[in-house]
Amino acid sequence: MASGVSIFDQEQKYNYTEPAILCDPAAFAQVVESRRSVRVYNGDPIPEEVVRECLRLALLAPNSSNLQTWEFYWVRDPKKKAALVEACLNQPAAKTAAELLVAVSRHDLWRQRNNQMLGLFSPEKIAKRKSAYQYHNVVIPMAYEQGILEWRGWIKRLAMWARGLSKPTPRSPKSNSDMRVIGHKSVALACENLMLAFRANGYDTCPMEGFDGVRVRRILNLPSSAEITMVVSAGKRAENGVYGKRLRFDSAQFIKEV
Amino acid sequence: MASGVSIFDQEQKYNYTEPAILCDPAAFAQVVESRRSVRVYNGDPIPEEVVRECLRLALLAPNSSNLQTWEFYWVRDPKKKAALVEACLNQPAAKTAAELLVAVSRHDLWRQRNNQMLGLFSPEKIAKRKSAYQYHNVVIPMAYEQGILEWRGWIKRLAMWARGLSKPTPRSPKSNSDMRVIGHKSVALACENLMLAFRANGYDTCPMEGFDGVRVRRILNLPSSAEITMVVSAGKRAENGVYGKRLRFDSAQFIKEV
Repeated sequence: MASGVSIFDQEQKYNYTEPAILCDPAAFAQVVESRRSVRVYNGDPIPEEVVRECLRLALLAPNSSNLQTWEFYWVRDPKKKAALVEACLNQPAAKTAAELLVAVSRHDLWRQRNNQMLGLFSPEKIAKRKSAYQYHNVVIPMAYEQGILEWRGWIKRLAMWARGLSKPTPRSPKSNSDMRVIGHKSVALACENLMLAFRANGYDTCPMEGFDGVRVRRILNLPSSAEITMVVSAGKRAENGVYGKRLRFDSAQFIKEV
Repeated sequence: MASGVSIFDQEQKYNYTEPAILCDPAAFAQVVESRRSVRVYNGDPIPEEVVRECLRLALLAPNSSNLQTWEFYWVRDPKKKAALVEACLNQPAAKTAAELLVAVSRHDLWRQRNNQMLGLFSPEKIAKRKSAYQYHNVVIPMAYEQGILEWRGWIKRLAMWARGLSKPTPRSPKSNSDMRVIGHKSVALACENLMLAFRANGYDTCPMEGFDGVRVRRILNLPSSAEITMVVSAGKRAENGVYGKRLRFDSAQFIKEV
């Protein structure tokens, strides 16, 4: 996602053009409308190439500063899968699923990914795209590093508050909690792509937050700094696999025109 | 999203059926592939009904326990819009946008929304869907309430740790930070729907995290407990509105088959 200060220079001058292609809005609406959280699957397998295609589309989601601090674990080993089902509290949406995918936020790896991005800048590219380089080289480390006991965050709060008195000033991330939010947010954007992609390809999904995070982490051999955003199960819905009509409160409660 | 303990009973017996309709995977992939973060728009307006349709599709995203703790502010008032552009640090993606939408997490309203949900249960429905009622009546308040200084969260940590020694146990949310993550995660799922919907309808978007949260909150008259997930700008891309080819690291870095 776009963020930062004074990095909005004339990137336009690079004359890259990517025309807006025409899409089919009705076909898209159909995907979104027919996606339901499926609680019971019918046992049909999902072809490997469909899972791969859905994961490919997941990774095309926008994400914070394009640092791609996400990971998707496709749990295929039968033993690990059985353990994961148990860690998902044995709920039918996990137990009956053809595939289980674990979406993980790796905001703990922001520095590594940012360095990886910086590594793509040749001296030539640095000269040509100064502001993008500056953004990754200076702005991101300044913004993302919170320091031990968040000491940098506290100084940032104070400095941004003072600066904010006179002019618009970005204030986040200013805590480890903010860093978590940024990480999970990006993973969630990708998860929505993933779930819609399964639906578009004739399959269904259920996003699960009800799981034993300690056990899931152990199954995947994840460090404690990695955080599980959600477990997504996938398969073909059983006949009564959707438990009821979609329930949404009146949209006037949520959409405010101001 | 599905979550919780012992609430996975035989909801299937209600015999609701919603068949999986056939979708067009190529049409869907086209939407995802052609969505780029657009930094400069060409000034064309977006028909009102397109914005409404995209917002409608946004609200069909899955979300935590279906509490729908989200709000979307469509900023139309010229004065407010100008102030919002400034709060977005005057970046071209905001300045040149036809429309600006602010996605807000209202995880602070979880209790109110949960009560609203409980209000939909007639005595008859309670008898018929005991576990769903139980989930909203008992499980959610127990899980979501953190208490002053998170005292309940700390007790929960201890209790869940002890329980987790012998059986799979959900451990989150156990802090205000976890509540924030849950809230923003759901809003992000909706934001991805929103952005893809604009693309499907021939328009483009840019998700922005670089803004002055204090000023945006003031413009929208939001309480400090409401948190801005992102500002989404929309419009038709200018010829050089996309700054470069999509950049993604090798997917083998992110997709792990285990």
